[in-house]
Amino acid sequence: MDLLIRNVSHEGKIVNIFVSKGKIDRISDTVSESDLQGIAVLEGDDNYIFPMLHNGHTHSPMVLLRGYGDDMVLDEWLNTKIWPAEARLTEEDYYWGNRLALVEMIKNGTGFFNEMYMNPRSMVKALIDFPLKARIHFPLIDGMDVELAKKQITDCSLFFENTSWTQNVKGGVALHSVYANSEYSLKWAGEYARRNNLPLHIHLCETEQEIENCRQKNQGQSPVEYLEKLDFFRDNKVFAAHCLWLDESDIDILSGHGVIAVHNPVSNMKLAAGRVFPYSKLKDKGVPVVLGTDGAASNNNLDLLEEMKIASLLQKHHSGDPTLMSADEAFSLSSGPVVSQIFETGSGKIETGSDADFIIINRKSLSMTPATNIKSNLIYSASGHDILHMILQGEILMKDRMIRGEETVVEMAHRRAEILLKS
Amino acid sequence: MDLLIRNVSHEGKIVNIFVSKGKIDRISDTVSESDLQGIAVLEGDDNYIFPMLHNGHTHSPMVLLRGYGDDMVLDEWLNTKIWPAEARLTEEDYYWGNRLALVEMIKNGTGFFNEMYMNPRSMVKALIDFPLKARIHFPLIDGMDVELAKKQITDCSLFFENTSWTQNVKGGVALHSVYANSEYSLKWAGEYARRNNLPLHIHLCETEQEIENCRQKNQGQSPVEYLEKLDFFRDNKVFAAHCLWLDESDIDILSGHGVIAVHNPVSNMKLAAGRVFPYSKLKDKGVPVVLGTDGAASNNNLDLLEEMKIASLLQKHHSGDPTLMSADEAFSLSSGPVVSQIFETGSGKIETGSDADFIIINRKSLSMTPATNIKSNLIYSASGHDILHMILQGEILMKDRMIRGEETVVEMAHRRAEILLKS
Repeated sequence: MDLLIRNVSHEGKIVNIFVSKGKIDRISDTVSESDLQGIAVLEGDDNYIFPMLHNGHTHSPMVLLRGYGDDMVLDEWLNTKIWPAEARLTEEDYYWGNRLALVEMIKNGTGFFNEMYMNPRSMVKALIDFPLKARIHFPLIDGMDVELAKKQITDCSLFFENTSWTQNVKGGVALHSVYANSEYSLKWAGEYARRNNLPLHIHLCETEQEIENCRQKNQGQSPVEYLEKLDFFRDNKVFAAHCLWLDESDIDILSGHGVIAVHNPVSNMKLAAGRVFPYSKLKDKGVPVVLGTDGAASNNNLDLLEEMKIASLLQKHHSGDPTLMSADEAFSLSSGPVVSQIFETGSGKIETGSDADFIIINRKSLSMTPATNIKSNLIYSASGHDILHMILQGEILMKDRMIRGEETVVEMAHRRAEILLKS
Repeated sequence: MDLLIRNVSHEGKIVNIFVSKGKIDRISDTVSESDLQGIAVLEGDDNYIFPMLHNGHTHSPMVLLRGYGDDMVLDEWLNTKIWPAEARLTEEDYYWGNRLALVEMIKNGTGFFNEMYMNPRSMVKALIDFPLKARIHFPLIDGMDVELAKKQITDCSLFFENTSWTQNVKGGVALHSVYANSEYSLKWAGEYARRNNLPLHIHLCETEQEIENCRQKNQGQSPVEYLEKLDFFRDNKVFAAHCLWLDESDIDILSGHGVIAVHNPVSNMKLAAGRVFPYSKLKDKGVPVVLGTDGAASNNNLDLLEEMKIASLLQKHHSGDPTLMSADEAFSLSSGPVVSQIFETGSGKIETGSDADFIIINRKSLSMTPATNIKSNLIYSASGHDILHMILQGEILMKDRMIRGEETVVEMAHRRAEILLKS
């Protein structure tokens, strides 16, 4: 036995969780003297334990660009701020940017993230130091240049061949969008993903302009129809980020192919994307929905508990129905069995045989006081800061809000951002 | 000299702030040996200092009802949950509920709050133990019963006569709303406030039903027109909470009387009030706007930094204009010179002669990393948890996130809520 988490509150009961080789070996009401032989003990102090959180869509190293461009129109923001800064990113920037994001994710209870960003090799390396579960999508973005597409495709194949994939760190293929990727890339990716059993990840229907341009260029087809025609969805697992500007037939197509819609409410509101995520419609049609933070440049943090609150507020506000997206439901978009099955991270349950992937919430926090409804407190009142410990596969990644190496990461991130953004 | 705050970052410069008798005596680049004689020192460690935050509308003891009713329709929420629970509140509940709210406010950097709740005497007493600045409005709510109104009015007059008002704790008169107060109360309050130079505080235009009912009962008048007819606004300082369902002529009336609109975005979204606060229109017409959290039963916390973020997100989203309500602007709705003048809490500036009312933000927090734009980080990335110290009138109310008495308050609040909500 490797670890005992003693006295944590799980679904209203105080339990002791024994962990062996990264998995829950046993959950017990009591602990005997012999149980304590040669085992590390994390005192739970009656705090609340929940399964880890999942971030369905993010661009990790963008934490370095936090606060660099705000309160700007999307085009201007991309053209004058984000893209010029991204063009200057060095290996060193990726190194520390990835680490800053990983530390921030641990701090906020995120045990899995669905990554889409340049230099994915750097992230795969960073995950050795901060061992989160992740799906690293190799990014294709060719700006309609087929020669560039071919180069990226070669590099993509090399990436998959040369990376040591594990049970925890898996790969996928990311397409930026229908407006930044050529048909050539989109078709190739759909085919490659099918052949290699890899998921796809794409920005889809984020802005009205995306829809209009796509219809103009492609015989009136919406981005969803266009992708379907390119055979992008067939027999593939596709993560579609944003999914704001959808009509009924788009939703039918997504539903028919089992596409997973990733909702990023904070980013959508901050950039004024102009539409509200059609949560109820997607749900009614059986489209799976998960939550994401998007990158920190448009959020500006990676706090999924905050994201859940704002997701729920936005649905209630927009529909005029305060019963929509309850606290329990908001939580289930980022944690628990359904989302864990989608991301293939385990059972998402706290039971014998499951991966020991937990967050432990401080019950003495003001946000969690009084304890009338723990889940409501967690979603509507608490934030990532109320997470006291984070355990991933039985390893304590954060204890009492302390993460090994955090100080260095913060210091180096400050330094990198200063050089990057002043040049 | 009472206190030296050494090495804090203020507007990009590291300074030392000397405090004497609750006020800033001197701000200096350097500290000499002699400066340190007989003075308490708070190490600023280059962290960021800002003026304290103001909460424009709250019902403090409702922290005890946090999580008691969520995801419910307003009427059902009030009738089956909130009002029955409120009817059972004991003196003991007010005692601990008020203290829990005050500790939570300190924790979130709130130095002033504009209170509207029953049993205001209990809050005046609680403020002796936790000395925040506050405006305690005596609540009138008669349910259209004039006899009850008369009793409350007598009690209100007694309250003002028998309370020891100070520079920090001031009084006002709260009317629940045009639908829960008789004309008799509303008229009396307008007159009483004028005569005694007291501000008024009222819920105004929160729901569509409020507008429709008012028009039906009062010859087509909107709540704003109705109050104007009752001479409620004339020569009075009025805080109007919510202000969602306003038309152009309502805004003109509010503007003409200098009414202050208090925006509570989280509560409005959570209860699905159905309209977005007309921020730009109010601003264009010169109506002062401040932020509030509303009570914790509809928020569910008292975190003004979170409220600023959501206020800004909602305006951007609703207008389709991401440049609306910048980080600086959102901050100014709760902190700084304008809001301090509105609430009569001092200059709201960090300069010689001003009240020493500060929050100090942890610069090493991940939310504040990198330091590209401090104000953006504070609003869009940070939350109340990133506030390290809170100083009010030179007294350190929170140091390193520790508040004297917090543990007892949390424990007692748990106990009170358990008794209150299980009975």
